[in-house]
Amino acid sequence: MEQMKNLAYYNGRISSIEDMMIPANDRGFYFGDGIYEVAMVFHHKIFALEDHLDRMFNSASMLRIELPYTKEEVGNLLTELILKVESPCQFLYWQVTRGTSPRNHLFPEQVSSNLYVYSKPWKGVETSDEYRLLSITDTRFLHCNIKTLNLIPNIMAAQKAKEAGCQEAVFVRDGYVTEGSHSNVSMIKDGVFITHPLDCLILPGTERKHMIAYCGELGILVEERAFTLEELAEADEIIVSSTSHPSMRAMELDGKAVGMKNPELVQKLREKYLEEIN
Amino acid sequence: MEQMKNLAYYNGRISSIEDMMIPANDRGFYFGDGIYEVAMVFHHKIFALEDHLDRMFNSASMLRIELPYTKEEVGNLLTELILKVESPCQFLYWQVTRGTSPRNHLFPEQVSSNLYVYSKPWKGVETSDEYRLLSITDTRFLHCNIKTLNLIPNIMAAQKAKEAGCQEAVFVRDGYVTEGSHSNVSMIKDGVFITHPLDCLILPGTERKHMIAYCGELGILVEERAFTLEELAEADEIIVSSTSHPSMRAMELDGKAVGMKNPELVQKLREKYLEEIN
Repeated sequence: MEQMKNLAYYNGRISSIEDMMIPANDRGFYFGDGIYEVAMVFHHKIFALEDHLDRMFNSASMLRIELPYTKEEVGNLLTELILKVESPCQFLYWQVTRGTSPRNHLFPEQVSSNLYVYSKPWKGVETSDEYRLLSITDTRFLHCNIKTLNLIPNIMAAQKAKEAGCQEAVFVRDGYVTEGSHSNVSMIKDGVFITHPLDCLILPGTERKHMIAYCGELGILVEERAFTLEELAEADEIIVSSTSHPSMRAMELDGKAVGMKNPELVQKLREKYLEEIN
Repeated sequence: MEQMKNLAYYNGRISSIEDMMIPANDRGFYFGDGIYEVAMVFHHKIFALEDHLDRMFNSASMLRIELPYTKEEVGNLLTELILKVESPCQFLYWQVTRGTSPRNHLFPEQVSSNLYVYSKPWKGVETSDEYRLLSITDTRFLHCNIKTLNLIPNIMAAQKAKEAGCQEAVFVRDGYVTEGSHSNVSMIKDGVFITHPLDCLILPGTERKHMIAYCGELGILVEERAFTLEELAEADEIIVSSTSHPSMRAMELDGKAVGMKNPELVQKLREKYLEEIN
């Protein structure tokens, strides 16, 4: 089998990511009208594939985007594609847009959704104990539970954080922490794992879900409730999690030292993750 | 000069709209990371070009997208492009995305923004006295003053309105009318033209701006203030305005008869518009 450095797929066509061209009439291009997923590939195997497929189908359903295939069929396609890429460890991205059609707010009729996939080599699991966070007012829409392509506020926040010397932004809405610009934000306080409940203000992160399961296995209490920025600043540990960065530990928030008071518990969660992927 | 039925332009390349291909790595495609404008072309001349260029540059500036040209240069390019299209009356669309780069929330460095333009024949000025409106909770982000490509809530609302037999959705936030899914919503009450003030909850519509100017010329009082859905239902007239549909008169809101009580004033505003474009 011919192997590639990286790969892009669009409705059946395959090329390198850099060479992939798509029609300007794809609704993703002018409306951001679509949803996406990111998954990690370890040892040429897609990690947490079921979780990502479940969320993909939920996101599409909430936007009323029709998917003309089953979860199994998408899973098989993705698996086939990642086997074409040399690196055993990959960053796998896929998105579905509502279709290709002349620009019109109304849903196009008799048009199929478009599936775009890419996969590229990834450096592997990265953890950090030196994350710096910047709090930013959460001005996003009330559909953050859907993993959409409408990501401008996330981009602006991530960039602002970087320019402040930070690795991630923490969104705060009405005083309460929601999530990061591309991560969930959880905290540990007095041995309890506390994370925002699933509602329209945060993405149901797969890593968030896995960490809750790890806590269950480790006998760590979990509270799914909103917490304030002040509570976050007083937490024993702040954990920033995403698919590509599963367990980042924050040591600074808005320029002040935070967390870093329960390294044993963080270590236990990290070990559970490493067990699961190996 | 060779003329085309319709035209698309992307960073210097020209084709029909249907044939235009763009790189999958355009940040518009996976982040909706860009801004746009729509202008009408009458008699092969772009209507209100200065207004659109001003707003384009404002939108780009608010998203920190760099535009490597002056307003005059964009205006000249657009003018050149619309002359290549046969129809004297056109729907002209253009958008700028932050650039082409591997997907990363952070702004790409040393990458130029992408300019996409298309123009197609348009049926000409259309007015309606039979608009039906559906009120919908405004769940959008707090950047509605920027004309971005992040339009999912607008799409969903427009579609929902259509399925309810309506021509437009009216967004309502905390009881107050903000705007339509792709229009501004204003009302006339006791001879006064009332429209939402310019803030982060509405788009600064060019037609809204022009109507305020017409009111000035006609000696009609203008109040820029938020009004409730109940006030809208009791208005003498409801005017739904956008660049492509400058003056639509609503006769129904959520299934109940509304407006239609000051046809003379609506007529005066429409005449001003027709005067201006001819």
